[in-house]
Amino acid sequence: MAKDKAPRKPRAETPKGFRDYSGADVVERRDMLAKISAVYERYGFDPLETSAVETVEALGKFLPDVDRPNEGVFGWQDEDGDWLALRYDLTAPLARFAAQNRNDLPTPYRRYAFGPVWRNEKPGPGRFRQFYQCDADTVGAPSVAADAEICAMLADALEEVGIARSDYIIKVNNRKVLNGVMEVAGLAGDDKEAERGIVLRAIDKLDRLGPDGVRALLGAGRKDDSGDFTKGAGLSDAQVNIILGFIEAKDIVNAQAQEDIILPVLNNDTLQLEQAVLTAQYGENPAKGPTDAGMRYNALLLSHLANLVGTSEVGMDGVDELSDIASLLEAQGYGPDRIVIDPSVVRGLGYYTGPVYEAELTFEILDEKGRKRQFGSVAGGGRYDDLVKRFTGQSVPATGVSIGVDRLLAALRAKGQAGQAPAGPVVVTVMDRDRMADYMQMVGHLRAAGIRAEVYLGNPKNFGNQLKYADKRNSPIAIIQGGDEAAKGVVILKDLILGAKIAENATLEEWKDRPAQEEVKVEGLVNAVKLMLLHQKGPLKLADYL
Amino acid sequence: MAKDKAPRKPRAETPKGFRDYSGADVVERRDMLAKISAVYERYGFDPLETSAVETVEALGKFLPDVDRPNEGVFGWQDEDGDWLALRYDLTAPLARFAAQNRNDLPTPYRRYAFGPVWRNEKPGPGRFRQFYQCDADTVGAPSVAADAEICAMLADALEEVGIARSDYIIKVNNRKVLNGVMEVAGLAGDDKEAERGIVLRAIDKLDRLGPDGVRALLGAGRKDDSGDFTKGAGLSDAQVNIILGFIEAKDIVNAQAQEDIILPVLNNDTLQLEQAVLTAQYGENPAKGPTDAGMRYNALLLSHLANLVGTSEVGMDGVDELSDIASLLEAQGYGPDRIVIDPSVVRGLGYYTGPVYEAELTFEILDEKGRKRQFGSVAGGGRYDDLVKRFTGQSVPATGVSIGVDRLLAALRAKGQAGQAPAGPVVVTVMDRDRMADYMQMVGHLRAAGIRAEVYLGNPKNFGNQLKYADKRNSPIAIIQGGDEAAKGVVILKDLILGAKIAENATLEEWKDRPAQEEVKVEGLVNAVKLMLLHQKGPLKLADYL
Repeated sequence: MAKDKAPRKPRAETPKGFRDYSGADVVERRDMLAKISAVYERYGFDPLETSAVETVEALGKFLPDVDRPNEGVFGWQDEDGDWLALRYDLTAPLARFAAQNRNDLPTPYRRYAFGPVWRNEKPGPGRFRQFYQCDADTVGAPSVAADAEICAMLADALEEVGIARSDYIIKVNNRKVLNGVMEVAGLAGDDKEAERGIVLRAIDKLDRLGPDGVRALLGAGRKDDSGDFTKGAGLSDAQVNIILGFIEAKDIVNAQAQEDIILPVLNNDTLQLEQAVLTAQYGENPAKGPTDAGMRYNALLLSHLANLVGTSEVGMDGVDELSDIASLLEAQGYGPDRIVIDPSVVRGLGYYTGPVYEAELTFEILDEKGRKRQFGSVAGGGRYDDLVKRFTGQSVPATGVSIGVDRLLAALRAKGQAGQAPAGPVVVTVMDRDRMADYMQMVGHLRAAGIRAEVYLGNPKNFGNQLKYADKRNSPIAIIQGGDEAAKGVVILKDLILGAKIAENATLEEWKDRPAQEEVKVEGLVNAVKLMLLHQKGPLKLADYL
Repeated sequence: MAKDKAPRKPRAETPKGFRDYSGADVVERRDMLAKISAVYERYGFDPLETSAVETVEALGKFLPDVDRPNEGVFGWQDEDGDWLALRYDLTAPLARFAAQNRNDLPTPYRRYAFGPVWRNEKPGPGRFRQFYQCDADTVGAPSVAADAEICAMLADALEEVGIARSDYIIKVNNRKVLNGVMEVAGLAGDDKEAERGIVLRAIDKLDRLGPDGVRALLGAGRKDDSGDFTKGAGLSDAQVNIILGFIEAKDIVNAQAQEDIILPVLNNDTLQLEQAVLTAQYGENPAKGPTDAGMRYNALLLSHLANLVGTSEVGMDGVDELSDIASLLEAQGYGPDRIVIDPSVVRGLGYYTGPVYEAELTFEILDEKGRKRQFGSVAGGGRYDDLVKRFTGQSVPATGVSIGVDRLLAALRAKGQAGQAPAGPVVVTVMDRDRMADYMQMVGHLRAAGIRAEVYLGNPKNFGNQLKYADKRNSPIAIIQGGDEAAKGVVILKDLILGAKIAENATLEEWKDRPAQEEVKVEGLVNAVKLMLLHQKGPLKLADYL
């Protein structure tokens, strides 16, 4: 409210919680998304890019993390009084698009999409208000074959971008099984919706809080390390035990099955297993081999779940669906080494109605305090049969997955699969500013030969600054032509990569053996640069000279 | 303000002025931007992706088209009271980014960027509130060599995406020359800023209104076809003549030079000219050949401009810069057949301070009324030396170009260079829903071989619907396996492309000669599909069978 302030310069800053991406960050993400897109297209998915802005009524209230303060969207009122907002995910716009174009789209409609989404949340370390998502969804396919397909596609996409087969696991569960367990625990009915919400979110925190923390949240409540108290669902011990028995089903079955099935498969016979999976996928008799062990493990787990939900119809329905998914995946060679049934996966979002799935990266990284921990979740999704119905009134089955693009990129960097600085341009230096046309011509010839190249366009007075610039640009070669060279019709090529190596650790003999610069005729410039670039990549082969 | 309304379903609509892109629209834009990016990277430009949201103070008030009502941004106030807004172009965020990172960026900093921008304007036919831009800018290069480079790069980019060399022209002018002309016409000085603004915008409408319309706008004003009156700059006839003499300079010089230089180059010797340009760019003696004619044309035009601005220092400065740009471009083989000096180009934006440039597509299309007209402008830009200064207080020279992505894509479609429907997936139909696992396995084998394929995941009851679906998906092949086929270990491949042709116009003999479906062993499925896909592209060669 201060008046009469002198006009001041605007701050050169992104708004709080926003950031820019430049250079390698942009290239790496683009490359990763191109690889994922190629997999999605191979599965028959078509690209879609909806507008970034939606009406608030179309977006609806489906934000995840409803127990977090300051959740919300960036919105404003347009001149007609309608409220508009930036999309907070790619699913709500898909539901709107599918409803809007329902008469023109094929049924089922498979689409993938990637792009920024925006959340009006409190920014924090690593938490931004604009971030990328990459989604794939199938709208209009009631069969869980669609869910199985998306899980298989997710596995293929992770491997395509560079995550090794042993470094990830996709966990599948079914909300219907969970609803069956809720029913058995006496938590069915519309009046128990709030309790069920607390239960869902508590289970979702199993990884972070462990069984005891989840037990506290299901019961009276939980005090965290800072002393803050979170109110619990207020369930009885008996109810809590039923729910914990469900989410720990995998561990229980694991313990039962360890000697019989799991150990030989997961530990001793990894090689045999992989071989068998390959045979299963491409060979003539996919039903043979250790995939049988996976089937037996799945059968054991499914029968355990069936016992847990025995009296609940919706629960049994869910177990059947999980069984179908497991069989369909097995038929394509995706065994529990890649895609596994795991009842501890619930996904926080309230709109899921059937199968839910999550991709976890299982390799270890060091956290900010230097402790080892698993990399964790990079993608998740599930079936949401009621989102399109909001618009049309008719139920439209849908299922889909969302990849956390920034997290997956961070994982690739942690595994050394991304993060290399892109190749810098060849820099033609300016020794004589009146001869800029000559330098532009050189650079034109280099570009015409497909070589990334530029003329130095800063103030050419200080030649040292030109070489510093080339260094900052990761330039492999600097090209120099002063008056003497021009008179002789030659240019000097300075090998900046070799130069840096020599500056670091070369002996005098090495330096003499292969000096970091050479003089070539102007006509031979392009070929000389090509050869030097090849040389920088490793020893030359005869073919390189041809 | 109606109360107690029954809750209603949200409308499934994009907000007014927004739209979605799907399928081929997404793919074509992505491919085009990838080609442009490759050219930009070859020129040494690095990618940048700034956040979509900026503070309003960082964006500043640099919107084009200030004479249009309802111009503006989409903005809102955040919880700290700061006003945030969606970026309206990619230049203002670059200025903010360059100021924010000025200690870390190389100087000069060459960057390219593409992405959506948003304008809070009245939507209309073909005018949207979210659209794509693709920009390239050089920050920190005072020399007009940077402007010349961007013009050359723009020419390369247009050719790379598929615009033929004879189908575009890049026009270059210089605001300093225009300012010199204003000075000569008595329009210098801070108190004449409003008049100069009107003059700029009037010249910018030359294409649309012709010389007489511009003359009216420079004088008392102009009544348009609808009867609406636009107030003019109120200049005297003498002043108007000076300015029109400037913007028509090219025509005057053209008339002077027609018999001497232009006609033989542009009409009679086109082939010779193209050959010479190629020689100039790649050959040994670039100063020879008809490029000399281009140089003579440029010299004639520049001396005419020098006469016009003779008494103005800034004007002469501008003529010298244009002369430098022309020489630098000539040295790289870009003659007036591709990049030409044209004083009628002014660009509407107020922030340009030196060279301005614009790419026009010169081929004709039919407008909505069926009349022939030139396709027109698809890109433009110029030098803006003061935008970064807003943040830092220090003048930072910068120049850059923005491509109208949607317009360029429309041009490619008009030339048949884009717009083909992408290849649809092979569709494995579902004859027996209990055997879904078998169908999933088939599709898995096809995908593993790199073939785009999917299982039909809708309700399989009506087989006709499955074929209709395949048709809607542009599917090349449908695969069918009922119980009989399964028992025999075979599948049926239905050639949907041949089938469509036969349905259209085949004789009975042709139909018998090559039926649109064939039966193959299950083991041979992948190879049979591969062969059929090849066959659909044209007659098979021996190598296709190996």
